Amino acid sequence: MSGAPLEAALRLALDAGESVRGTTSPNPPVGAVILDAAGQVAGVGATRPPGGPHAEVVALEAAGERARGGTAVVTLEPCNHTGRTGPCAQALLRAGVAAVYYAVADPHPAAAGGARTLRDGGVRVHGGFGAEPAEAGALRAWLHRQRTGRPHVTWKYAASLDGRSAAADGTSRWISGPQSRARVHAERSRLDAIVVGTGTVLADDPWLTARLPDGSLAPHQPLRVVVGRSEIPKTARVLDDVAPTLVLRTHDPDEVLGALADRVDVLLEGGPRLAGAFLAAGRVDRIQAYLAPVLLGSGPSAVRDAGVRTIAEALRFRRERVETVGADVLLTLVPDRE
Amino acid sequence: MSGAPLEAALRLALDAGESVRGTTSPNPPVGAVILDAAGQVAGVGATRPPGGPHAEVVALEAAGERARGGTAVVTLEPCNHTGRTGPCAQALLRAGVAAVYYAVADPHPAAAGGARTLRDGGVRVHGGFGAEPAEAGALRAWLHRQRTGRPHVTWKYAASLDGRSAAADGTSRWISGPQSRARVHAERSRLDAIVVGTGTVLADDPWLTARLPDGSLAPHQPLRVVVGRSEIPKTARVLDDVAPTLVLRTHDPDEVLGALADRVDVLLEGGPRLAGAFLAAGRVDRIQAYLAPVLLGSGPSAVRDAGVRTIAEALRFRRERVETVGADVLLTLVPDRE
Repeated sequence: MSGAPLEAALRLALDAGESVRGTTSPNPPVGAVILDAAGQVAGVGATRPPGGPHAEVVALEAAGERARGGTAVVTLEPCNHTGRTGPCAQALLRAGVAAVYYAVADPHPAAAGGARTLRDGGVRVHGGFGAEPAEAGALRAWLHRQRTGRPHVTWKYAASLDGRSAAADGTSRWISGPQSRARVHAERSRLDAIVVGTGTVLADDPWLTARLPDGSLAPHQPLRVVVGRSEIPKTARVLDDVAPTLVLRTHDPDEVLGALADRVDVLLEGGPRLAGAFLAAGRVDRIQAYLAPVLLGSGPSAVRDAGVRTIAEALRFRRERVETVGADVLLTLVPDRE
Repeated sequence: MSGAPLEAALRLALDAGESVRGTTSPNPPVGAVILDAAGQVAGVGATRPPGGPHAEVVALEAAGERARGGTAVVTLEPCNHTGRTGPCAQALLRAGVAAVYYAVADPHPAAAGGARTLRDGGVRVHGGFGAEPAEAGALRAWLHRQRTGRPHVTWKYAASLDGRSAAADGTSRWISGPQSRARVHAERSRLDAIVVGTGTVLADDPWLTARLPDGSLAPHQPLRVVVGRSEIPKTARVLDDVAPTLVLRTHDPDEVLGALADRVDVLLEGGPRLAGAFLAAGRVDRIQAYLAPVLLGSGPSAVRDAGVRTIAEALRFRRERVETVGADVLLTLVPDRE
């Protein structure tokens, strides 16, 4: 098998995994592609919702007999355990696949060992193929939780070029443009929870729902989490019955994450003090900064009190991506762990 | 003449103009390319320093007899007047050029009319070819000054993702990375003047010189301009004898620009109040924002008091370019004059 069909299959598998992100919890959103013996795409699959088949099984079903002597390209090491579905390693063996390329080894103790099972069955197995895009992609939050025991936290903020999230009088609608707001709503619909501080609820009275471009509610709504010591009114929009809401009487990041221990992918939306507390505690695993081409010159910053007193203590990040979203620029960053 | 050689010639002409930016004042930094009758590049030229020939003449000299029946591609309308050098329109006619493409019409009353002279001489003339990149490129500051009578002001700042130019204790070395700093020094060497407030001199004691990558001084140093009402010490580095320095006892943008009326390309480097005053007065013609992948959570903002009280008054800009410079992101923006 030459490189080009494998690279194309990896791209397809990554896209398949991304297409089901947010719908597979507690299982990881995996993508799989089966190439036939001639290197042609015979089947594409992605993890079905809990109780349904894993990505490899979906792809094998699509491929049918064409899988025999073919190659599987999977974003995660095929599982070895019999949960609600049979182990994928056995399914690949039964289908007569000759080679398996997977991106990331399974960190889950009960599921690991699939690569060995496949090798023992005579399959050529190559791990680490496409590991970098797979780790940064759909599997990111799930891998983080497997490795650390904590949900993955993305801090999202929208700010002016001078880092302010509102004007001097507190008004903030809209700093970022309509394309950015649509993207945030699409992202919310794939998340397990959205966390904000009581200050944000008192200032902006947000719904924190995920909405489709036509304004209607998305099918999946994340858990809404309001944290902090201030009282919020019973009439707050975030307490409506559109989605569940959890109110936590703490500002401590680890207490918040402890209460969300069964969640995988969490979005932190602010305000500035809560963001500062999570940043100071090292509990921000990714930043999505929507920077609008505006200047304010006064008004609250997007982050306060992050525990930095002098420039040598600055919190440093690594740029993962720079995109333009309408008039805005979206920077995606991850902690710089040198 | 088909499109591809013309497009390539335009690119060459723009690059030639850019290569002499900062060395031609009071003349504009123009680039010119002569294609022979077969569409091959016969000569490339850029404006020589004052007293030397204009771009068209340099390119014609390089082309020699190959110019006859050929095409000239120039970033600015060829001049019609006899200054220290003869009019370029006449030189093009004498050389027997059959067609002239130029990007921007000459706004200078004494120099305009070159297109008509060429047409009267039987040359096919096409104006506005490549106008957009030419206006945004090397000619930008010169055109601005011709049209408004004021020098062109670029506000450059380096800040954290939360818009801060220093940490809580005032330390700021280094928020931006070495590649960004090298680029700022290269840019300084092409400018007429750098403007800072007395606060910046008191806080950082900068030299405000343009340095080469090896740390030595660049051949051209911009005028250093310190503005504001505070006293600065006689020992301030900015008062050394490496470059001239102008001290202005005002914070008023129009008074500052009035004192720099004979300059074309001015860089405003800060601090936050001075930037705010220029922004509030509408005297920032371009922003270069170096955003470093760091968060501070406290410390001074890059801009203060820009006259914005509520979000509807936000100063809005149009993104001209997004680049990565080492670990930093450089946003270039211009005022959004809708």
